[in-house]
Amino acid sequence: MNQDISPLELRHKIRSGEFTGNTSGYSKGYVQGNLCILPADWANDFLQFCQLNPRPCPVVGMSSSAGDFGILKLGEDLDIRTDIPNYRIFEGGELIKEVTDISDIWRDDLVTFVLGCSFSFEEALITDGLEIRNVSEAVNVPMYRTNIDCASAGRFSGKMVVSMRPMLPTDAIRAIQICTRFPSVHGAPIHFGDPGLVGIKDINVPEFGDAVTIRENEVPVFWACGVTPQVALEQAKPPLCITHAPGCMLVTDLPNSHLAIM
Amino acid sequence: MNQDISPLELRHKIRSGEFTGNTSGYSKGYVQGNLCILPADWANDFLQFCQLNPRPCPVVGMSSSAGDFGILKLGEDLDIRTDIPNYRIFEGGELIKEVTDISDIWRDDLVTFVLGCSFSFEEALITDGLEIRNVSEAVNVPMYRTNIDCASAGRFSGKMVVSMRPMLPTDAIRAIQICTRFPSVHGAPIHFGDPGLVGIKDINVPEFGDAVTIRENEVPVFWACGVTPQVALEQAKPPLCITHAPGCMLVTDLPNSHLAIM
Repeated sequence: MNQDISPLELRHKIRSGEFTGNTSGYSKGYVQGNLCILPADWANDFLQFCQLNPRPCPVVGMSSSAGDFGILKLGEDLDIRTDIPNYRIFEGGELIKEVTDISDIWRDDLVTFVLGCSFSFEEALITDGLEIRNVSEAVNVPMYRTNIDCASAGRFSGKMVVSMRPMLPTDAIRAIQICTRFPSVHGAPIHFGDPGLVGIKDINVPEFGDAVTIRENEVPVFWACGVTPQVALEQAKPPLCITHAPGCMLVTDLPNSHLAIM
Repeated sequence: MNQDISPLELRHKIRSGEFTGNTSGYSKGYVQGNLCILPADWANDFLQFCQLNPRPCPVVGMSSSAGDFGILKLGEDLDIRTDIPNYRIFEGGELIKEVTDISDIWRDDLVTFVLGCSFSFEEALITDGLEIRNVSEAVNVPMYRTNIDCASAGRFSGKMVVSMRPMLPTDAIRAIQICTRFPSVHGAPIHFGDPGLVGIKDINVPEFGDAVTIRENEVPVFWACGVTPQVALEQAKPPLCITHAPGCMLVTDLPNSHLAIM
């Protein structure tokens, strides 16, 4: 399938079942978001957790009221129950199953959150001429649990998870400048250099994703990562939580450039 | 003398001879600039050198025509011949003498350049809560010759000189963000980490200024430095060049915040 498809067309093909699988590389230039759906009596705590931890949990959109399955701000004719290729359903913090449609289990008390994702800033970095190692090596970005505590909110708490991209120092400085413009997709890196300073024991053994090559003179650069809220959700164990399956994102009508604050 | 003096008052006290010496710490909040005065037939080359190397040579003001000794943009009733505590006079690249007034040697063909200086961004960093080691240790910032070639312009060329401030990585990221807002006072750092990558042999032996303590877990962060044009001037050997003596800057009426591009 042609990757240069509009987000609306892509969502329709996902809805009809014609498109399944990873959304990475499709509808380039448009924001892809992490999905989290929670019952209303858990949503306020989660929203506060995101508000207190905007670097790992940047909210780019949420349903205007419980039960709503559209998010007008993020897309025309968007139906959150059908427009994501693969959903994960968690009960009490445990993964129960993966499905391609959640219409049959939709409830009037469900609240949808869409969180920014690193695809947007990676595109901005690549456009600027920087090499992103996980992209050039065609693997998932390496991610690590840190010893950095997130601010707690109600039943949500946990350590920050970070993603890592190795860079030469001059490129890292440029990346910091570019990512600063994009606070709603994790913003500037939170650390570079010595992994031990943030509690990472072995840079070659990521806890999520894949290891990437770190070349001579490169330093690891660490960004707050969208896996952070997933870890907090697993610990909080809400009775029901629906997320996207890894790599199967919500593709929105929002241009990536729209997220730049300057 | 009270350091909280207006730039205009300070310039008048300098002009009258009441104030001599280092301007550091005086008229806080206002831009202090590096001075370079050249004969007109050298000024175009120098201007081009600055234009090609804006990080080490950021022009914040210049005389509107040869012979002018005021720069209206930089200060009310400013007289560049008298308003700097100490001048250095170079002939053929050699330091001839230091004087407190250049009225008697002023010529109609002299062109004045004022270049941005690190005092402005150091103030912004300190205001944000960062520690600047050379300030807290009350010494001159350590500076080093690098192996980075400046772009040449006519008779001007040379290696870039950098200043160094040690920081924890998280503080370095914040410093990169803040300094990015101030391109006319050297802007973002040009390097961090391994000094050898930019040709610095021993971080503990600066070629200009004083060594500072580098604490555990800190990385050296390097900024393009205003000594770069001085080195280029020494190599180019213009028949006459007048600069400020180190630390004895032109204090302008321009608020530091005015230099922030965003």
